[in-house]
Amino acid sequence: MANMADKKLIGVDLGGTTIKFAILTLDGDIQQRWSIDTNILDDGTHIVPSIIDAINHRLKLYDMTADQFIGIGMGSPGSVDLEAGTVIGAFNLNWKTLQYVKRDIETGTGMKFVIDNDANVAALGERWKGAGENEADVTFITLGTGVGGGLIANGQLLHGVAGSGGEIGHVTVETHNGYLCTCGKHGCLETVASATGIVRVARDMAEEYSGNSVLKKTLDDGEEISSKIVFDMAKSNDPLALMVVDKVTNYLGLALANAANLLNPSFVVIGGGVSAAGDFLLTRVDKAFKANTFPNVRETTAVRLATLGNEAGVIGAAWLARNAFVK
Amino acid sequence: MANMADKKLIGVDLGGTTIKFAILTLDGDIQQRWSIDTNILDDGTHIVPSIIDAINHRLKLYDMTADQFIGIGMGSPGSVDLEAGTVIGAFNLNWKTLQYVKRDIETGTGMKFVIDNDANVAALGERWKGAGENEADVTFITLGTGVGGGLIANGQLLHGVAGSGGEIGHVTVETHNGYLCTCGKHGCLETVASATGIVRVARDMAEEYSGNSVLKKTLDDGEEISSKIVFDMAKSNDPLALMVVDKVTNYLGLALANAANLLNPSFVVIGGGVSAAGDFLLTRVDKAFKANTFPNVRETTAVRLATLGNEAGVIGAAWLARNAFVK
Repeated sequence: MANMADKKLIGVDLGGTTIKFAILTLDGDIQQRWSIDTNILDDGTHIVPSIIDAINHRLKLYDMTADQFIGIGMGSPGSVDLEAGTVIGAFNLNWKTLQYVKRDIETGTGMKFVIDNDANVAALGERWKGAGENEADVTFITLGTGVGGGLIANGQLLHGVAGSGGEIGHVTVETHNGYLCTCGKHGCLETVASATGIVRVARDMAEEYSGNSVLKKTLDDGEEISSKIVFDMAKSNDPLALMVVDKVTNYLGLALANAANLLNPSFVVIGGGVSAAGDFLLTRVDKAFKANTFPNVRETTAVRLATLGNEAGVIGAAWLARNAFVK
Repeated sequence: MANMADKKLIGVDLGGTTIKFAILTLDGDIQQRWSIDTNILDDGTHIVPSIIDAINHRLKLYDMTADQFIGIGMGSPGSVDLEAGTVIGAFNLNWKTLQYVKRDIETGTGMKFVIDNDANVAALGERWKGAGENEADVTFITLGTGVGGGLIANGQLLHGVAGSGGEIGHVTVETHNGYLCTCGKHGCLETVASATGIVRVARDMAEEYSGNSVLKKTLDDGEEISSKIVFDMAKSNDPLALMVVDKVTNYLGLALANAANLLNPSFVVIGGGVSAAGDFLLTRVDKAFKANTFPNVRETTAVRLATLGNEAGVIGAAWLARNAFVK
């Protein structure tokens, strides 16, 4: 049997399109990476067996055995029960009923298994090996189709009493006629700062805008736009696109500042597809962040872009296993 | 030497007017309580010696010795350095320079000592023996001259990287022409929901109000009002006072909802002088809270009034000592 320090971790990042895997050292260095397509047919019943097969097959390929691993960590969409290791309501996986993920993967691989939701796991990854510099207090937000968050404080994730800790996408940022959110309330950050939210803001501001603007013309011509197009046009100084970006980044800066006024993390890390807008986004969010933070928070909490990209999930998942199974 | 389980805790609540003391069991039951006036003369140099004297004198009175105690916990105004056990910038104590509180009290009493800021300590007290029901996740807000907060998550206080965790009084709740706060930014919760903030809101709304109102008449007559007077008039259905209370409780509900969207605590506990308005306040805050919380948070996080009153500080201080020194 391998020495504890030589043992490895397996990180799994379960998404609606692909399932990413990695084998990592206890220090979080990735040694192997691979991925498979997510087969969501038949109510997602193929997903867990395909994860088990992918791990067992890969171990055989490398001539490795289960006892050389500390365990498996995984990030999953949907509502995760940490204790039971089950998932329910992951609609992009067609998982409508309770899935016994931990039970099945432990039986199928002979390894210990731990699970958390995908935004939390990405937060752990960015905190451990990315922009979070392994600090004890890191706030993470992911701007994608939706807006998710993961909060690390005193070195641990904040789940709250019922697992809704970190729902920064559902912080109310607009109290005057805010958009209706899929969650049922109005004015959530997600309604204006997700990829779809940014497009919604652009469409509404275009209706009121009467000047020259490529963005306005594009929308008037009935062409599809994306949040990336809005940011690209803003970078080219399109006046309407700049107004949209200002509005969106003001909301983001407000929500992140208010999170930082509560948590005073070392870093607020912005990830997800929308964060590809880079420093152009960061500079504007940071301005609104500084305008809304308590002085000592302004001086000690820094806003940053995520650095790990797609790897945040598998790295954070590996940290989960390390935290759970290494004493 | 006494058995560990028989040992006692000392809790100290240092305020600008009085210093409260209590001797408690390890279960948090108060056995003795006393207090002394705070002597802030001579740059507050009498404060620490008077704390030491008060403890030593009381122990002598009860024929007790230092080794019968686990240690002393204390809550203090100002900026507290937890590790060093020092305090600076407690202006209501005239403490402008660094105070070596831990060093001096440990030397003077022969007991171990631990300190945190007063809002955090009150939060710990309410969480342990009050409305927080000893849950692992409790958010506490105190509405007094200012607005303070203490956040407990995963069973521990959240201090953040530089001690500003829990600054809920400086969460931005008004982004359109919010009042200037003493902290230098605009629209902080404290500017509208502290005792002085409520009076400010009342004065401004009275200027615009043209109907019949005892509150308006009182202000027009140049009489002084207080937040208590505003709430009392609202309870008597004064139309302007009701508008003021609605505005204030909407801001409070928004800020507490957004904190709960991040932390999903079991309880959000409202304490401090303004909370004496009781269920009249709570009902209105809760309505705004529910309008701004993510569904799963709305269902699992409850807003409550604090129950310990003035004793929250000494009880929370005792918990600090228990947490620090009982392994």
